[in-house]
Amino acid sequence: MFKLLFVFAVLILSSNASVQDFCVADLKGPESPAGYSCKSVTKVTVNDFVFSGLSAAGNTSNVIKASVSPAFAAQFPGLNGLGLSAARLDLAPGGVVPFHTHPGASEVLLVVQGSITAAFVSSTNTVYLKTIKKGELMVFPQGLLHFQVNAVGFNSVAYVFFSSSNPGLQIMDFALFANDLSTKLVEATTFLDEAQIKKLKGVLGGTG
Amino acid sequence: MFKLLFVFAVLILSSNASVQDFCVADLKGPESPAGYSCKSVTKVTVNDFVFSGLSAAGNTSNVIKASVSPAFAAQFPGLNGLGLSAARLDLAPGGVVPFHTHPGASEVLLVVQGSITAAFVSSTNTVYLKTIKKGELMVFPQGLLHFQVNAVGFNSVAYVFFSSSNPGLQIMDFALFANDLSTKLVEATTFLDEAQIKKLKGVLGGTG
Amino acid sequence: MFKLLFVFAVLILSSNASVQDFCVADLKGPESPAGYSCKSVTKVTVNDFVFSGLSAAGNTSNVIKASVSPAFAAQFPGLNGLGLSAARLDLAPGGVVPFHTHPGASEVLLVVQGSITAAFVSSTNTVYLKTIKKGELMVFPQGLLHFQVNAVGFNSVAYVFFSSSNPGLQIMDFALFANDLSTKLVEATTFLDEAQIKKLKGVLGGTG
Amino acid sequence: MFKLLFVFAVLILSSNASVQDFCVADLKGPESPAGYSCKSVTKVTVNDFVFSGLSAAGNTSNVIKASVSPAFAAQFPGLNGLGLSAARLDLAPGGVVPFHTHPGASEVLLVVQGSITAAFVSSTNTVYLKTIKKGELMVFPQGLLHFQVNAVGFNSVAYVFFSSSNPGLQIMDFALFANDLSTKLVEATTFLDEAQIKKLKGVLGGTG
Amino acid sequence: MFKLLFVFAVLILSSNASVQDFCVADLKGPESPAGYSCKSVTKVTVNDFVFSGLSAAGNTSNVIKASVSPAFAAQFPGLNGLGLSAARLDLAPGGVVPFHTHPGASEVLLVVQGSITAAFVSSTNTVYLKTIKKGELMVFPQGLLHFQVNAVGFNSVAYVFFSSSNPGLQIMDFALFANDLSTKLVEATTFLDEAQIKKLKGVLGGTG
Amino acid sequence: MFKLLFVFAVLILSSNASVQDFCVADLKGPESPAGYSCKSVTKVTVNDFVFSGLSAAGNTSNVIKASVSPAFAAQFPGLNGLGLSAARLDLAPGGVVPFHTHPGASEVLLVVQGSITAAFVSSTNTVYLKTIKKGELMVFPQGLLHFQVNAVGFNSVAYVFFSSSNPGLQIMDFALFANDLSTKLVEATTFLDEAQIKKLKGVLGGTG
Repeated sequence: MFKLLFVFAVLILSSNASVQDFCVADLKGPESPAGYSCKSVTKVTVNDFVFSGLSAAGNTSNVIKASVSPAFAAQFPGLNGLGLSAARLDLAPGGVVPFHTHPGASEVLLVVQGSITAAFVSSTNTVYLKTIKKGELMVFPQGLLHFQVNAVGFNSVAYVFFSSSNPGLQIMDFALFANDLSTKLVEATTFLDEAQIKKLKGVLGGTG
Repeated sequence: MFKLLFVFAVLILSSNASVQDFCVADLKGPESPAGYSCKSVTKVTVNDFVFSGLSAAGNTSNVIKASVSPAFAAQFPGLNGLGLSAARLDLAPGGVVPFHTHPGASEVLLVVQGSITAAFVSSTNTVYLKTIKKGELMVFPQGLLHFQVNAVGFNSVAYVFFSSSNPGLQIMDFALFANDLSTKLVEATTFLDEAQIKKLKGVLGGTG
Repeated sequence: MFKLLFVFAVLILSSNASVQDFCVADLKGPESPAGYSCKSVTKVTVNDFVFSGLSAAGNTSNVIKASVSPAFAAQFPGLNGLGLSAARLDLAPGGVVPFHTHPGASEVLLVVQGSITAAFVSSTNTVYLKTIKKGELMVFPQGLLHFQVNAVGFNSVAYVFFSSSNPGLQIMDFALFANDLSTKLVEATTFLDEAQIKKLKGVLGGTG
Repeated sequence: MFKLLFVFAVLILSSNASVQDFCVADLKGPESPAGYSCKSVTKVTVNDFVFSGLSAAGNTSNVIKASVSPAFAAQFPGLNGLGLSAARLDLAPGGVVPFHTHPGASEVLLVVQGSITAAFVSSTNTVYLKTIKKGELMVFPQGLLHFQVNAVGFNSVAYVFFSSSNPGLQIMDFALFANDLSTKLVEATTFLDEAQIKKLKGVLGGTG
Repeated sequence: MFKLLFVFAVLILSSNASVQDFCVADLKGPESPAGYSCKSVTKVTVNDFVFSGLSAAGNTSNVIKASVSPAFAAQFPGLNGLGLSAARLDLAPGGVVPFHTHPGASEVLLVVQGSITAAFVSSTNTVYLKTIKKGELMVFPQGLLHFQVNAVGFNSVAYVFFSSSNPGLQIMDFALFANDLSTKLVEATTFLDEAQIKKLKGVLGGTG
Repeated sequence: MFKLLFVFAVLILSSNASVQDFCVADLKGPESPAGYSCKSVTKVTVNDFVFSGLSAAGNTSNVIKASVSPAFAAQFPGLNGLGLSAARLDLAPGGVVPFHTHPGASEVLLVVQGSITAAFVSSTNTVYLKTIKKGELMVFPQGLLHFQVNAVGFNSVAYVFFSSSNPGLQIMDFALFANDLSTKLVEATTFLDEAQIKKLKGVLGGTG
């Protein structure tokens, strides 16, 4: 039996050198199109694969009465390169996650408290709209505009999961109104009225 | 303004023909290495993108005191080709999801009730073990052996999400003991004792 | 030398059976997440790999004074599965391709006549805006909102190329205003004023 | 223990429906860009995963004194979609596998008998040339021109493995001289002399 | 409304940390199989996404009467990791882009001036040949030998687009004749005559 | 002809800058999810693409009477990023490669000496078992448990090839018994008897 131990030790040693089961993000190393650099395996611990940042409710004391807390590779380094990430949505009564897209991933939503009305719009402009109850799932195909709205008179909570460790997040209102894109160009490319644009630029801190 | 309507209608018509934002599984069509065939878009409804099958607790009145309910593309056709799927774990006190792998996906676990002790083992045989509380996440890299055990004296519930719409599931004990692989070959390839193998073959319905 | 011919003939015959250099779309066969089914190689001709549909100018006699003509796999079957597609943009003076995204592809634009002001907005809401002259290229990363506007007093023409044979096209205004999503929900999820929404719903044929 | 059996049976039944560990090629079904359709799992046997066609030597009684026997998905259906395939090379003394490429895969060569001089040429026209002995490996990066020549005075045998179940095979001489591409166009696009082209067209059965 | 601004600012800050919509090439950083390292987002400007290098005609005062100007990730860093690149072809009367392959990408050609006769050869040695006029497209599947020849008595210009930001380029004549691969090996692996090989080696600077 | 040389030199120079046909592993640079960093092309030689480490028999003087020698990217840097790797199996009479998985790749086995009984188990617990003779191939789909056993009374040798340059290797017995996972947890998650677990922990060096 001593020999069995021995031969297996050899197997392990030889395989060790070529093993990379995972690539925990080293946030300070160079990034590539495939994600963050890998932290040295000798420095990896189980805590790299566990994330507690979504266990507490986000702050919904604001106008949208909602909060979004991401667990992407930048927050949860163990996800890097594994094709998955997550976020938590808290929606107070009346809370809304406004129209947005994830340029790099599809999304599955799980309601864990309350009820949420969600929809996505397809390339053919069809609306897929449904109110999702606790324990139900809804999937949003990659890159399409979608939103979530609290459907009940108390706090709703959902977790969403993405098919990439870096899904991206583009909130439509911010893309349009929270930067220095000129009102004239926004008007020309959205057909919104000038007054409407200026109003939302004012609210969201845009200029021009 | 009538003209605006007209030109946009033209844009829609021309883009319609080439749009495939999603590929809802047609479970009766031919399968390819990329997944199920796509259901005709004209037959797709929002219900293809919503799944209620995980909202009720699974039956844990059994010896492992646990249940696993999948929401893969075969159960939840809207996921097909989107690189995501899910499952629900119910663990009664003492409940266990035994050692298993998902050959085709990484997994993220979210505890929504109770607390779960989970671990995966790397190619270098390092154990990454942690007790995960409600609201916490743990990631299991693709293809590695892992397990989940209820860590509290009451029911725990978790949802898991996969980086594929068809992650697969190989439960180690079943791969070893629930088929007709001869006891002699199991013994030779696992170093388990013959009596142990025969005992578990008996329990799990294996022969040979 | 006769033998050389012979052996090569054998090589060809044996390799023929396993050759699939391309997968010209059979638009009537089942679709998979990877694209259209492949037309039988025996029916493929060079014309499947050539597309003339973008050689003529599109009709810009409309309110946006622009047209978009796609050459995706649905129009140009030879592209199926090859990770590429194209479209032609015609912009009369004042012409605009309004804010839109391609959920499944990055895009490169080539101006072949005139000059075009284009921009995309990143997830951090930064605007990358530039006026592109004849012969210049601009790239739009996958899934991000972008637009194109004619920058000169005569017709401008551009060709765009995508990193997928099925890039998708979601025109923001249509996703918001050209369907039956209720005004109330649009208002809640865009922060636009009710009057503005109703006005654009009227123009674009939306209801609710 | 009866219950254990019961619960596991349930687990199996529920997981069965969503399992697709492999996609054995159904050569008569529709093809997609991802490969052949999948044969029904109920008809799959171990013989789909085993291939004996490369165990016998190929016929090298020909001018190139060599033979190439493929085990691509078309010959070996179990490989379909798994990202792997193989071929056997037999080279009699003086045997040559002429310059060729695999448009869709990288290749690793293993010499199992004799010795083979092999080379590939990079995009910068650097030649990577080596004589490989029994038991040695050489890798040829995707799509680059390469050849293999017997390096000894007796039969050499090698097996090659590809990073795709459908790597393709383009033999340069055949692409140039074994079809109806006009001598004038071959001359213009290769800078070879007309006489040289006509000579090889004659040998390889080309016309024009 | 101040609160709306506040909550959105929070959303932005939290999402900023995990955003990587693009990966502009840092040509001095380490490369990975997925491409160049990413330039810091804070140093990225719109000019990284715009390329003017293809707006001027290339120099065709040479024997092939043609020029090829690449816009790959190395020249156009904004393309890095986005699955796209481009090149410009200028062909004077009689101009030729000789037989070549792109080992890592499919290609679409757009004629913007004049007319071009182009062809690719499949693995089964079928020639797909066509004369492409201004505004027409032709696609060349990945890795296959192809060429372009001016079809008119004046300058023709085309732009080509690739399904990779690093498509590679292997010009057949250079792979064969512009290096130190011995005449004997070239002869054995191409069946060309020794005199022909030595002649082209002389022209293209090859030795051996 | 001087001009031809000149123009081609220009073509080469311009294409050089953007060529990355391969990415030979720089084992000391940062790793990414896509693999090792690339060694500078100027330092690459043909020896990076050749591997001799599998030409000699491994040492089978041990209890499993077998050895496994990997040629993954860590041992054979030229494979990095090319989607392929290899290993050599030596099995003395009675030799066994115990149940194991490769989390990141499918595998093809080629017997080059003797005969090997091999099997894999699917997610539905079906055993695909066959004795493979010299020159035969068997494929093992990604991530599934499999084993190899010598089927003859003399040494058998096989080479295996993987669909990744970093396939990983998880030997089941080691994952279970060669680390500090507590006997109690192993018992709970495998249904093995405590005595059996302690016995194998003793043999394989596990604790707890």
